[in-house]
Amino acid sequence: MGFVRVGIIGCGTVGTGTAKLLIQNADLIKKKTGIEFKLVKVADIDWERKREFEVPKELRTTDYKEVIDNSDVVVELVGGKTFAKKVILEALEAGKCVVTANKHLLAEEGKEIFEEAKKRNLFIGFEASVGGGIPVIKALREGLAGNKILNILGILNGTTNYILTRMFEENLDFETALKEAKEKGYAEADPSLDIDGWDAAHKIAILAMLAYGGYLDFNDVYVEGIRNVDKLDVELGKELGYTLKLLAIAKKVDSEVEVRVHPTFIHSEEALAKVSGVYNAVMIEGDFVGKTMFYGQGAGSHPTASAVVADVIDAGRFLLCSSKVLPPVNWEEGELKVRKNFYSRYYLRFDVPDKPGVLAKIANVLADYNISIASVLQKEMVCKIAGREGETIVPLVILTHKAFEEDIQNALKEIQKLPVVVDKPVLIRVEEEAY
Amino acid sequence: MGFVRVGIIGCGTVGTGTAKLLIQNADLIKKKTGIEFKLVKVADIDWERKREFEVPKELRTTDYKEVIDNSDVVVELVGGKTFAKKVILEALEAGKCVVTANKHLLAEEGKEIFEEAKKRNLFIGFEASVGGGIPVIKALREGLAGNKILNILGILNGTTNYILTRMFEENLDFETALKEAKEKGYAEADPSLDIDGWDAAHKIAILAMLAYGGYLDFNDVYVEGIRNVDKLDVELGKELGYTLKLLAIAKKVDSEVEVRVHPTFIHSEEALAKVSGVYNAVMIEGDFVGKTMFYGQGAGSHPTASAVVADVIDAGRFLLCSSKVLPPVNWEEGELKVRKNFYSRYYLRFDVPDKPGVLAKIANVLADYNISIASVLQKEMVCKIAGREGETIVPLVILTHKAFEEDIQNALKEIQKLPVVVDKPVLIRVEEEAY
Ligand SMILES: NC(=O)c1ccc[n+]([C@@H]2O[C@H](COP(=O)([O-])OP(=O)(O)OC[C@H]3O[C@@H](n4cnc5c(N)ncnc54)[C@H](OP(=O)(O)O)[C@@H]3O)[C@@H](O)[C@H]2O)c1
Ligand SMILES: NC(=O)c1ccc[n+]([C@@H]2O[C@H](COP(=O)([O-])OP(=O)(O)OC[C@H]3O[C@@H](n4cnc5c(N)ncnc54)[C@H](OP(=O)(O)O)[C@@H]3O)[C@@H](O)[C@H]2O)c1
Repeated sequence: MGFVRVGIIGCGTVGTGTAKLLIQNADLIKKKTGIEFKLVKVADIDWERKREFEVPKELRTTDYKEVIDNSDVVVELVGGKTFAKKVILEALEAGKCVVTANKHLLAEEGKEIFEEAKKRNLFIGFEASVGGGIPVIKALREGLAGNKILNILGILNGTTNYILTRMFEENLDFETALKEAKEKGYAEADPSLDIDGWDAAHKIAILAMLAYGGYLDFNDVYVEGIRNVDKLDVELGKELGYTLKLLAIAKKVDSEVEVRVHPTFIHSEEALAKVSGVYNAVMIEGDFVGKTMFYGQGAGSHPTASAVVADVIDAGRFLLCSSKVLPPVNWEEGELKVRKNFYSRYYLRFDVPDKPGVLAKIANVLADYNISIASVLQKEMVCKIAGREGETIVPLVILTHKAFEEDIQNALKEIQKLPVVVDKPVLIRVEEEAY
Repeated sequence: MGFVRVGIIGCGTVGTGTAKLLIQNADLIKKKTGIEFKLVKVADIDWERKREFEVPKELRTTDYKEVIDNSDVVVELVGGKTFAKKVILEALEAGKCVVTANKHLLAEEGKEIFEEAKKRNLFIGFEASVGGGIPVIKALREGLAGNKILNILGILNGTTNYILTRMFEENLDFETALKEAKEKGYAEADPSLDIDGWDAAHKIAILAMLAYGGYLDFNDVYVEGIRNVDKLDVELGKELGYTLKLLAIAKKVDSEVEVRVHPTFIHSEEALAKVSGVYNAVMIEGDFVGKTMFYGQGAGSHPTASAVVADVIDAGRFLLCSSKVLPPVNWEEGELKVRKNFYSRYYLRFDVPDKPGVLAKIANVLADYNISIASVLQKEMVCKIAGREGETIVPLVILTHKAFEEDIQNALKEIQKLPVVVDKPVLIRVEEEAY
């Protein structure tokens, strides 16, 4: 029977859930693992605040160093970048294993942390940083370890998925759906980290690094949020058999990787399209396993604590193993080369006057850029465009075959200059790899 | 850099896929794990047969003992019970770690094997025994290790899911859908292991043992297949908002567990209901994580090989760890007590003459057994009952609230004796825990 001392730094939403789990399920965990995980210290700056679970008085401290000194496994749950990084590096320097849920920090400055852990041959767990309670990091590191990972498609942010679900199901516009999300507590007062795609981008950056075995410059990740999604496109897409999701995508293309987050159409019949509300899901395709999907609650105190504790247990097993074999993870590739000129299908919407010859003009430009058209939808529906109230302006939707992003962007610039196009064209990428 | 010798016994569908994976992705696995996994021997009785992948001649043998002698990890992929058990026990006795995909053997005689492995503190991997390539055993053992598992609902057999999907989508009858499944290669010539629920039962027995930490007498598992599913019920259920699935269920109820496989209605809007065709999915609910779902290909050479190799890698990490810490698994509970009088909602169909007073008679009997009615559907639709062609016989569907199985069975026996009920009533359990 082993014995492992666990300390938590940051007793907020996730920290409180983790303390609760470690105390409440202590016997169960001991039975399952043969190891006693003892919560020995919890640090926070404010112990006056009421919490969902009362951390026993004798475990509380305001000094994070006390946690590091007294634990074998240090759990960082303060969030933010500066102080969290300091905590993690100090814990590693003190020879302690680390568990963190800090996607922001790992995505942007993970390299320094992972290198430090590797140098010292210490376990660093970050299951809770992606997909809340869903054990997707473990799946990628271990469960699918024999596979070459072909691509990853994730719905990794509950707030945006809730909003898009409501827009799709109830034909709400973005602002109304966001307001509803705030009222339900699914969106924060300042929702920009979620709405603008940054949270999902942090998570897919972490998955991409793991899947492709190298570090990523987070600035290379293409990030586009859902703030400008027009309900008209949600509706037109629905008619074409597509559901709009904020997809986080990582793909290996030759020696490069594509890592991107943007509103994406996927076939409404596919499993990912059916992930609704605040749930998260990650589809991973491997060369042998084919397509697998992992689904669950992507956030919240208890689900996230479940992931943190899974890591704590792995850290404990690691510590009790004298020869210290780390779980499979390969940073051998060094820096990953990120490809920005991605290759995708596109949904394009142009608002145009309802007269002959318009489609031909647009199609000509697309042809010039080697973009081939898969289908066209012209609706008998009038767009209201400020300043052009007298005219009959209709939406013209073009679905393309696979094309290069740069070609599409250049073609759009040119099309926009055509006098027949009355507004900025809408571009939404279409993902056929989903299922 | 560690070095681990791997041997395979049984080079059929899964064995061939495993050999292919280990050889084809050898460099990748070495990079990821820092361990060299070398396939050293493969045993089969027939090396004349053409295979998807040619095992190098120098690795082939017909003598399984040669595999055991030369490997650190022995992979048993012969299937069946007698010889496979002998192979596994001999490998363990020789101090070798074992990986197997043999659900049949583990479900029925797992105790002896697990005890032997435990006694010798040897790793035994069986990820491939449930859900093909889906890393669900790992999720249960490790990814969700901090949780008390509340319930598990699985679609664990692709053949039956394909048939039920076709019945639901195209309104086919069972025989037609089965014929189609055979033509597509999704059902074997003798499909009874699948169709009658045994394969799913083997898998849920394994998951139940893991989740609840004790052994199970396989004879205690309630198993009912899909052979007698009437397309009329699939259709009526659909109208009521339900999809029929062959669900494998494990639940903890007080100090007992329910472990059962039967056709089950679940809400059509739930994620499990949308798992169609040959895909598998497992929903696991834990006290902290809430509901999670794992989805993927439940069979086939390559997906199953992916799971086998994940176990081989874990075995290798275990071997290189001198203090040998086994992954969390708790057999502490000893024998699990299986509860047979389960508690569920029910869909009941009675074929009755279209006259007043019939419902009252049936409802009276149900009330006598404390079964309360949630809703009633009487269709203006005529059932064809042999011998009663002259009468107008209609299906009367009753959905109950939660009730005990024994009460339902006793009530049905009594109702069947009522002169108004012209045929054996249909009973289908309804699961509300799904999502
Ligand atoms: N919430 C989720 O559902 C979720 C899901 C996945 C991952 N995560 C990640 O988990 C981490 C924690 O998130 P959270 O939601 O739990 O955040 P939170 O509720 O804001 O908790 C952070 C806690 O850390 C405390 N803290 C701040 N500075 C400290 C210091 N110098 N010393 C000690 N304690 C300090 C804060 O105290 P005061 O507030 O009292 O100042 C607060 O109680 C973040 O990295 C987040 O991205 C969260
Ligand atoms: N197929 C799947 O998709 C799948 C999925 C999950 C789990 N599984 C499990 O994986 C296991 C293997 O399944 P499989 O589909 O690969 O079966 P399979 O195709 O029938 O392969 C079994 C192989 O073992 C060989 N064998 C039989 N007796 C032997 C002996 N005494 N010494 C050496 N080799 C011997 C057979 O040889 P001959 O045929 O030449 O006699 C055959 O090549 C089973 O336990 C099964 O339940 C299979």
